[in-house]
Amino acid sequence: MDVALVGFGTVGQGVAEAIATKNHVLEQSLGDKVRIVAAFDSSTYAVDKSGLDPLDLVKRKAAKGKLGKVRKDSIAEMLKALDYDTLVEMTPTNIKDAQPGLSHIRAALGKGRDVITSNKGPLALKFRELANLAEKNECELRFEASVGGATPVINMARELLVCERICSIRGIMNGTCNFILSRMESEGIPYEPALREAQQMGFAEADPSYDIDGIDSACKAAILANAIMGLDITVHDVERTGIRGINLDAVNLAMQERKVVRLIGEVTSRGAEVSPRLIPRGHPLSISGTLNLFHIRTDLAGEITVAGRGAGRYETASAVMADIYTVMKLRRSIGQRD
Amino acid sequence: MDVALVGFGTVGQGVAEAIATKNHVLEQSLGDKVRIVAAFDSSTYAVDKSGLDPLDLVKRKAAKGKLGKVRKDSIAEMLKALDYDTLVEMTPTNIKDAQPGLSHIRAALGKGRDVITSNKGPLALKFRELANLAEKNECELRFEASVGGATPVINMARELLVCERICSIRGIMNGTCNFILSRMESEGIPYEPALREAQQMGFAEADPSYDIDGIDSACKAAILANAIMGLDITVHDVERTGIRGINLDAVNLAMQERKVVRLIGEVTSRGAEVSPRLIPRGHPLSISGTLNLFHIRTDLAGEITVAGRGAGRYETASAVMADIYTVMKLRRSIGQRD
Repeated sequence: MDVALVGFGTVGQGVAEAIATKNHVLEQSLGDKVRIVAAFDSSTYAVDKSGLDPLDLVKRKAAKGKLGKVRKDSIAEMLKALDYDTLVEMTPTNIKDAQPGLSHIRAALGKGRDVITSNKGPLALKFRELANLAEKNECELRFEASVGGATPVINMARELLVCERICSIRGIMNGTCNFILSRMESEGIPYEPALREAQQMGFAEADPSYDIDGIDSACKAAILANAIMGLDITVHDVERTGIRGINLDAVNLAMQERKVVRLIGEVTSRGAEVSPRLIPRGHPLSISGTLNLFHIRTDLAGEITVAGRGAGRYETASAVMADIYTVMKLRRSIGQRD
Repeated sequence: MDVALVGFGTVGQGVAEAIATKNHVLEQSLGDKVRIVAAFDSSTYAVDKSGLDPLDLVKRKAAKGKLGKVRKDSIAEMLKALDYDTLVEMTPTNIKDAQPGLSHIRAALGKGRDVITSNKGPLALKFRELANLAEKNECELRFEASVGGATPVINMARELLVCERICSIRGIMNGTCNFILSRMESEGIPYEPALREAQQMGFAEADPSYDIDGIDSACKAAILANAIMGLDITVHDVERTGIRGINLDAVNLAMQERKVVRLIGEVTSRGAEVSPRLIPRGHPLSISGTLNLFHIRTDLAGEITVAGRGAGRYETASAVMADIYTVMKLRRSIGQRD
C-alpha cells in the first residue's frame, strides 16, 4: 500500500519509525507492506514512487530540520496530483478552522483515496461532511489516533461491539487535567502548583487553556458522538466546564466521602458534555495519572472500559498503525472480491 | 448460519434471548441471520432444520425444566450426525477432565464445523489439541466468553492489537475475589464475613475454593497464555496462590501506603501465575468490586486496559454474540472469495 505522510512532527516521526519496525508484521499477516511514496513537513517534502526509507526520513528531519525540497504549492494541491493509495494526515489540531488538515483530507477523499488521521480539528468541526465524502467516494476515513492516543476506543466500539447498543460513553479524555486532579488529591497541593508541575513535566502547554478549559476533551467527545452515536455535532455543540474552578477544598471534601473529582466527557444519543464530576474511589473512572479512559454502557455487556496512554510518539503511532492494518485488510478483501 | 446450542443453563438461555434480540443487527450488517437448528440441555433436546424459536426454547425451559425429548445417545454422538454450521458450546466448566464440553467441541471441529464456547475446561486443559484440530479442518474456534465474561480481551488482543508485540497481560480475573478484597478494604471487615457476604449475594458458591484458591483465575490465565502468547500450557502449569491467607492487617497496612491488595493473574511469554499483589491506588489494576480487568503491556501502545463484567446471563451472551458476529463475517468473506 502506497502512503503519503503529511505532518512530520512527533507523531509523523513516530509513525515512520513504526512502519519501519512493523512492516514485517503487515507482510506476514496480510502479504503486503507499507511503501511511503511521499512525506511532507510544514515547508518541505520528499517524493519517490519506488518508496522512501522511513528511518532515513526521521534521520534527515532530526539532522537538518527538513525532509527535502522546499514546497512551492500547497500540500492539498500536491496531494491532488500525487499518486498514492492512502493519506496519513498528522498535522497539528487547529480548532479555529481545522486547517491545513481539512484541505488535505478533502483532497485525498475527493479523489477516492483512503485517509487515516490523528488530527482532531477536521473531525471536531467537519465530521459529517468528511464522512459523507468518504462514503460517496467509497473510501475509508479512519481516526483512532484522534481520540485517546493509543486507546483503541473507536475501533473497539466499531469492530468488537457491533452487536451491542451503545447507550453512553463517559471518559477521562484529557491526561493533563487528570494528572492535575490526581496530584491535588494524592499530594494535597493546590491547583496552581499542580498545574505548574504538569507544565514542568511537559504535559501542559505554556497556555494550558486548551486542556484545562476542557476544549481538548470536548473535541474528543464530539468525535465520539459523531463516530459512534451517529450524531452530527461540532466541538461548539459540546456543553463544557473545565477544571479552573476546582480548589483543594472540593478535592478534600470528595476524598472524605471516598470519592475523587474527575473531568468527565459524556456522550449519549442526545449530545455531548464535559464537566467535573464526583466519582467513587475504585470505580473505573476514578483512575489516577495521565491515562485516557472510556467507560461504555451497552445493553448486553452492561459496561466495558478501555484505557490507555492518551499521547506520545509511539503511543499515537500505535493507533495509526492499527488503522493502517485495517485499511490494508479491507483493501485486500475488496481485491479478492473483485 | 445454522447453529447448534449445547448447554441451556443461564448462559445458554441468555444466548437464545440475545439471538432473538440481535438477529436484525446481524441481518442488517451481514445479510444473514442465526437459525437455531438444535438445542440441548443436560438430558433433553429439540431439533428442527427449519429453525427453533429462541424465545420459545427459553419459555419451555422455564416452564417445564426441559427443552424437548429425552436424549438416548450422547450429545457428542448426536453432533456427529446433525447438520449445522456452528456449535455454540455452553456446558459448565469442569477442570477435572473438561467433559462433556471437550467431546462436544471435538465432535464439531472433527467434522469441520466452527465452534464458539464459553466453557473454560476444554481450553484450560486441551487448548493446543483443539486449536490444532480447528486449524487442520480449516474452521474457527472462538472463546471470548470463556475469559472475563463480557470483557472483550481476547478479541481486542487478536483483532485490534495485531501490530503490537504483547509483552504481558496482568489482570483481575475473578470478580468474587476482587469483591471480597474490596469489601475488606472499604468496610474494614475481616476475610470470613466478606466471603459470607459474597456467598449471600450469589457471587461465591457454597464451596468457594474454585474462586478463592485462584483456580478460576488460573484457568483464564492459561487460556490467555495459550491464545495470545502462543504457549502450550494447562491450568496445572499455572503457579497459583489464592486469597485465603489474606487478613485484615495486610489490607490495612497496604492502605496506609496508598495501596490495595488484589489477586492478579499474570501472563508472559515465559508462563502464567496467579497471586495476591500490592497495587498502588489509582492504578488501573486497583479497581474495586466484581469487574474483571486486563492490563496489557505492548511495545508501541505501552499499556492498554480493558475491563467489564466477568459473569452474568446477558454479559456472557454478549461475548458469545461477538464471536457469532465474527464467525458469520468470516464465513461471508470466504463465501465471497470462493
